[in-house]
Amino acid sequence: MVIEAVKWIGDIDGHLELIDQRLLPNRFEILRCNDTETLYDAIRTLAVRGAPAIGVAAAYGLCLAAQTIDDDADPARAMILINQQADYMSSARPTAVNLFWALERIRRCAHAYAALTGFSIRNLRETILTQAHSITDEDKQMCLRIGQFGEPLIPDGGTILTHCNAGALATAGQGTALSPLYEAYRKGKRVAVYADETRPLLQGARLTAWELRQAGIDVTVICDNMAAWLMKQRCIHAVIVGADRIAANGDTANKIGTYGLSILAAEHTIPFYVAAPSSTFDLSIPDGSHIVIEQRNADEVASIAGIRLAPEDATVYNPAFDVTDATRISAIITERGVIEHPTTEAIAKTLSRNCRPSAR
Amino acid sequence: MVIEAVKWIGDIDGHLELIDQRLLPNRFEILRCNDTETLYDAIRTLAVRGAPAIGVAAAYGLCLAAQTIDDDADPARAMILINQQADYMSSARPTAVNLFWALERIRRCAHAYAALTGFSIRNLRETILTQAHSITDEDKQMCLRIGQFGEPLIPDGGTILTHCNAGALATAGQGTALSPLYEAYRKGKRVAVYADETRPLLQGARLTAWELRQAGIDVTVICDNMAAWLMKQRCIHAVIVGADRIAANGDTANKIGTYGLSILAAEHTIPFYVAAPSSTFDLSIPDGSHIVIEQRNADEVASIAGIRLAPEDATVYNPAFDVTDATRISAIITERGVIEHPTTEAIAKTLSRNCRPSAR
Repeated sequence: MVIEAVKWIGDIDGHLELIDQRLLPNRFEILRCNDTETLYDAIRTLAVRGAPAIGVAAAYGLCLAAQTIDDDADPARAMILINQQADYMSSARPTAVNLFWALERIRRCAHAYAALTGFSIRNLRETILTQAHSITDEDKQMCLRIGQFGEPLIPDGGTILTHCNAGALATAGQGTALSPLYEAYRKGKRVAVYADETRPLLQGARLTAWELRQAGIDVTVICDNMAAWLMKQRCIHAVIVGADRIAANGDTANKIGTYGLSILAAEHTIPFYVAAPSSTFDLSIPDGSHIVIEQRNADEVASIAGIRLAPEDATVYNPAFDVTDATRISAIITERGVIEHPTTEAIAKTLSRNCRPSAR
Repeated sequence: MVIEAVKWIGDIDGHLELIDQRLLPNRFEILRCNDTETLYDAIRTLAVRGAPAIGVAAAYGLCLAAQTIDDDADPARAMILINQQADYMSSARPTAVNLFWALERIRRCAHAYAALTGFSIRNLRETILTQAHSITDEDKQMCLRIGQFGEPLIPDGGTILTHCNAGALATAGQGTALSPLYEAYRKGKRVAVYADETRPLLQGARLTAWELRQAGIDVTVICDNMAAWLMKQRCIHAVIVGADRIAANGDTANKIGTYGLSILAAEHTIPFYVAAPSSTFDLSIPDGSHIVIEQRNADEVASIAGIRLAPEDATVYNPAFDVTDATRISAIITERGVIEHPTTEAIAKTLSRNCRPSAR
C-alpha cells in the first residue's frame, strides 16, 4: 500500500497526523499535531515536505486554528484569529508557493462564510474542514491521474531511474513522479526502481527508497554519479522525475542533478519523463532562462550530521535546482494528459483541457 | 607548496612518515611508522592510499623490516624475514597492483644482493633503502613529467573540474590528474578547481580540496550531480581525472562517475583529459570490455560515519569504477607524452618512447 504523508483524523474536533520525515528511514513515527505551533515547527523543520503535502498540511492547520476560537465569538473576532494564524503558518517556509496558495484558499472560503447570515463557530469550523478536505481530495485526484496517464509509459519488467523524492511523501496522494510506478505495480506489471540518493540532502536514499519499499516495490539506491554507468549497461528503461517549476515552453526546474540525467538519458536513448501537476507550470515565463536558481547553505554539502566532509577553507557551490531544456524531455506527464516533445503550443493546448483523463 | 604524502626520514635506521588521510580534512597529523605492523594497518585502513603512494610506502616497509634483522644474521636467515614481511605487507590491500610490484622489486633487489660475496646486514639495509628511494624518485619524476606535459592544456584563467583524488596524496610526488594544475600554478597561471565530492567515499571533498588548499589553489567543492549545471553555465574549461587501468585502445577504468562526466563534457564541448603513468596501461587487454568492475560494500553508500542514510531493506549498487570509452577522451597525459584522440596505435607509439619529455 502507498503510504499517507498527511492525514486528518476525526471531524471538526479532530487532529492532523504526519509521517515524521525527519526520522526516515531509520524510524517510522507519526507526528500528531493538535495545534498550529506543532504544525508550524513540523513544516519549518521538514517533518512534512514537498509542495503539495505542505499545502494540504497548512490547510488543516487552519482547522486546528478554528478549534481555538471561543464558541461564542462573533465573525469579526473569528476572522481576526484565522487571519493571524494564516499569516503565522505562511511564515514557516518562506518560498513555498503551495503553502501560501492553500492558506489563501481557506482564508477566502472562511471570509465568504463569515459574511453570511446565521454565522456559527461550529459551521465555520465545518466550512474550513470541508475546504481542507477538498484540497486533499484534489491533490489525491491529481496524483492518481498523473499515475493513470503515466502508467502506459512504464514497460512491464522495466527498470526506472528517479531522482530526489516526488512521491507519496511529497503529496497527499501517491505522488507525481512515482505515481505512474505505483499504478503500473497495481496493474501487475513487474517494476523495479533505481533511486539516486540525491545529494546533498539525500531525499532519494532516505525517502524515495523508504516509500517504495513500504509499497513492496523493488528499489536499489545508487550514488548520483552511478546513473550513467547503469545506463551504459542497459539497466535503465526510463527516467522519471518531478518538477519544481515549468516554464511556458517546457523548460523544467527540478532538484539539482536533473539536467545532467537528461543528457545521460538522451546519450543512451532512454526516455526522460517529467511528472508534475498543471499547477507547477508558470506560463508567465517563456522559458527556463527566467528561472532564478536558489543557492543554499554551504553546510548542506560540506557536512553530514555535524561531521565535516570538506576543508573549512574550501568554497562550496550548492544550487538547489537546475533547469532541463524542454528539448531533452521526452514527455511531461500532467493530470490533464501527457505532453510529448513539449513545446509552448503543446503545453498550452493540454493545460487548457478539462482535467478528467478523457483517454481512459 | 605541494604536500608530501609519503616521506622517509633519516638513513637506514630512519622511519617512515605518512600524512594520515583518515583524519583529513579535519585534522592534519603525521603518522610515524617505526615497524611494518603500523604501516600494514596504515595501508589497510587507508591512512595511505592511491596506487603509487601505497607502492612507495610498502617499499619503505621493507626498510623497516630490514631494521629488525639481527646484525649477525646470514643471508638465508635475512631473506626468510624479508620474504615473510613482503608477504605480510602484500596482504594489506588485496587488489593493489603497485603494492605487489614495489614489494617484488625490493625483494628481487635484496635477493640479488644476498647472493653476492661480502654480505652484511648493514649493506642489505642500504641496498633496500636505495631501491626504495629509487622507486620514490621515479614516482616523483613521473608526476612531474605528467605535470609538464599536461600544463599547456590548462588555460590561464581556466577553471578545471576533477573527480576523486589523483593528486599528491595518491603518489609520492605531485600527483597525476592534479600535477598539470600544480605546474600551471607554479608558472603563474591563474587556475581554479571544482572538486566533485566523489560519493560514496568523498575523496574529492576530503582529499582533493584539502591538498589544493594546502598549495594555495582556489577550490570549490560540489556534489557530483552539480557538474552538468556548472558546464551548462560555461564555468568549466576542462575536465582532468586520473585512471586505475587503461586498456590498449585507451578505454579507461577510473572512479565511478568518470564515465558520466565524459558524456557531460562532450555535450558541452569541454575537453576531457585522463592523466596517468604508463604503468597504468594494461596492453594485454584490447579494450575496456575486459575490465572487471569491483563491486564494493553496500554500507559505503547506505551509511556515513555510522549514520544510516538508506532503509535497511533497500538494495544498494556500489561499483568502485566505471569505464570511459577512449572515443570520449580528448587526450591521455602520460609521463612519456600526451596522446591526443587515443587509439591503440597512438598509445603503443607513445608508450614505446623514451620517458624523458623530448618536446621540452
